[in-house]
Amino acid sequence: MTQAVRHDSMRARNLELVLGEVAGRGPLTRAALAELTGLTKSTVSKLVGDLLDAGFLAETGPARAGERGRPGVEVVLSGARVASLGLEINVDYLAVCLLDLARTVRFTERRERDNRGSRPEEVLGELQNLAEAALAAAEDLTVAGAVLAVSGPVGDGVLFSAPNLGWSDVRAADMLHLPVSVTLDNEANLGALGELWFGAGPSDFLFVSGEVGIGAGLVVDSALFPGTHGLAGELGHVVVSPRGPRCRCGASGCLETYAGQEALLEAAGVASVHELLGNLGTNDPAAVQATTAAGEAVGLALSSAVNLLDLDHVVLGGVFAPLFPWLAPAAETVLADRLGRLRGSVPTLAPSTVGGDAATLGAAGRTIHHVLADPGPFLTPAHPRRVR
Amino acid sequence: MTQAVRHDSMRARNLELVLGEVAGRGPLTRAALAELTGLTKSTVSKLVGDLLDAGFLAETGPARAGERGRPGVEVVLSGARVASLGLEINVDYLAVCLLDLARTVRFTERRERDNRGSRPEEVLGELQNLAEAALAAAEDLTVAGAVLAVSGPVGDGVLFSAPNLGWSDVRAADMLHLPVSVTLDNEANLGALGELWFGAGPSDFLFVSGEVGIGAGLVVDSALFPGTHGLAGELGHVVVSPRGPRCRCGASGCLETYAGQEALLEAAGVASVHELLGNLGTNDPAAVQATTAAGEAVGLALSSAVNLLDLDHVVLGGVFAPLFPWLAPAAETVLADRLGRLRGSVPTLAPSTVGGDAATLGAAGRTIHHVLADPGPFLTPAHPRRVR
Repeated sequence: MTQAVRHDSMRARNLELVLGEVAGRGPLTRAALAELTGLTKSTVSKLVGDLLDAGFLAETGPARAGERGRPGVEVVLSGARVASLGLEINVDYLAVCLLDLARTVRFTERRERDNRGSRPEEVLGELQNLAEAALAAAEDLTVAGAVLAVSGPVGDGVLFSAPNLGWSDVRAADMLHLPVSVTLDNEANLGALGELWFGAGPSDFLFVSGEVGIGAGLVVDSALFPGTHGLAGELGHVVVSPRGPRCRCGASGCLETYAGQEALLEAAGVASVHELLGNLGTNDPAAVQATTAAGEAVGLALSSAVNLLDLDHVVLGGVFAPLFPWLAPAAETVLADRLGRLRGSVPTLAPSTVGGDAATLGAAGRTIHHVLADPGPFLTPAHPRRVR
Repeated sequence: MTQAVRHDSMRARNLELVLGEVAGRGPLTRAALAELTGLTKSTVSKLVGDLLDAGFLAETGPARAGERGRPGVEVVLSGARVASLGLEINVDYLAVCLLDLARTVRFTERRERDNRGSRPEEVLGELQNLAEAALAAAEDLTVAGAVLAVSGPVGDGVLFSAPNLGWSDVRAADMLHLPVSVTLDNEANLGALGELWFGAGPSDFLFVSGEVGIGAGLVVDSALFPGTHGLAGELGHVVVSPRGPRCRCGASGCLETYAGQEALLEAAGVASVHELLGNLGTNDPAAVQATTAAGEAVGLALSSAVNLLDLDHVVLGGVFAPLFPWLAPAAETVLADRLGRLRGSVPTLAPSTVGGDAATLGAAGRTIHHVLADPGPFLTPAHPRRVR
């Protein structure tokens, strides 16, 4: 290893340390940063100076020429330089979100659209338009990357199977033509990250995404647990009852056949979640009974998940968030009945505080997370400051 | 941080590096160790010298006085200095195992004993006798610690609940009076480590322990996934059918009520696993049907586990290992039916190659693992070389 390489890797590590502390704790003085990171004050001053110049950090309070770094001045993450794009294809909507480094949402749009049985080319064409609108909103920010959330298992840039869309083996990321690289990931995994970074999620929890399909993302020690192939968290296909209704995945009695959006709406005799919520508000018996039954099925599947994963906290997202007051009590009763004696405690259920934006926020946030961990490529003068 | 502390922590890290390479790869020359660890040859020579003096390493080939370290001589782990004790209380047996640092079994004993409904004091008294016999067999080895495997969820030294023993909230480790510290852990978790270290387990797999109770331990990247409280892997209480038979845990339709040893023997109309295996050997219809049904239930519970955990490999241990030829095909059919379309692949099932000793081997191996990661306390001359 040459001295230069060693110096570069130490500088990269130190930049990550400084950005990590500011991102995690908020405004900090240089002196506080030195104490938290164990670096010398002069090293911190140099690094902070570079990050200020690059537009990654900003000083708080009124800035006066030539007075950088005076005592008491704190630095915060700045959204003035880098942004990131989050995209989502779900069964009945498309969504996009542009986030800057300070995690401020610069642009967001959600378009209701029935994607069932649509050709991938057609859906991705419409998503391309949304993405271009978001990139235009980026103005002079450098867009560091895009992550596309899809409702099915994903690997090596391929959406293996999205039974609710009728898609299989779709190279969705390659079908977008954007001036930034596009990475594919599962919407429930990204929703879990969205809840972790932007919601009230604790450091360990299971995020359940209740849409037409039901997925989940497991967060352990503030990081996503991916499984061997990034396919962990398929809660929607956990057994509720082995002789239950046929599922689109080919199995029967999966959670989705009891608590997926279509099963739920059909049981409640309504056409939309909006209508279901209205009927629940007036205590319509069919609506209450359907939502309670879905909650029981969620509780059964979660009891298996808790037994396997040892969870204390479950966050219900997607349409389960607005349905929470009717759905959660039934699920909690099943969890208490099935787990109370063996474990001595029952996990808490909470509604997502991020709501339907969890996956796009997590998608955009993932690139921000990578940039904060490795800002080097954006600090060199050679790097273009604009994408378009 | 003082210079001395920094030097000590670097030495500790380097000792761990050297021991880790020898433990993982087998015999290595000092030159190979320098290349693998990135340490200088003189540092490696000093560390290897200290580890030879302490009895942690031995040179291969005939040793001649004054000739240590000549080219071509390799070093291996030595079992001459440190040993570790593995203990197990299961529903129908007690077991003990003494392992040295080279992972050679120095002593092992298994005592069949019906522990159902027995008082903890009584069972632990008999285990104390077994443990003392193992410690006597340690002779002049330093016994670094003991780990006790129990068939139920465990935390902070307490066995919360072992429904099949009729025990709850038992401080089992404190009830043994041994000259070494005793740690409590779950038998399926320890069985998974036993399979990882002593069997054919790959770096990522779910180990299923089929006894009177059914547990599981998840190995990810060659380490145990513990869950929030170390309670992950309770496969025995995953839902097979929500309106199924009542389980001792208080729930109904758990996997244990279909495929636990007692359910299986009752369905086959036999009194012991030995008898069941005999009847399977002669194609007795009741035995074949009962084992096939148990295999289907195992397949159903595993399909939920694979959906949640994204597993490629499952190892069936405990009584499921000898029953594998009759049990596994039924489980594999269910897995293929339920998972084939969504995932595109189905996990492989394999019988444990360690068999009934997995938990005691994992228990004893865990202390060896800790000693290899932090040998420092055993290298100082002040440390007593004998426990008793």
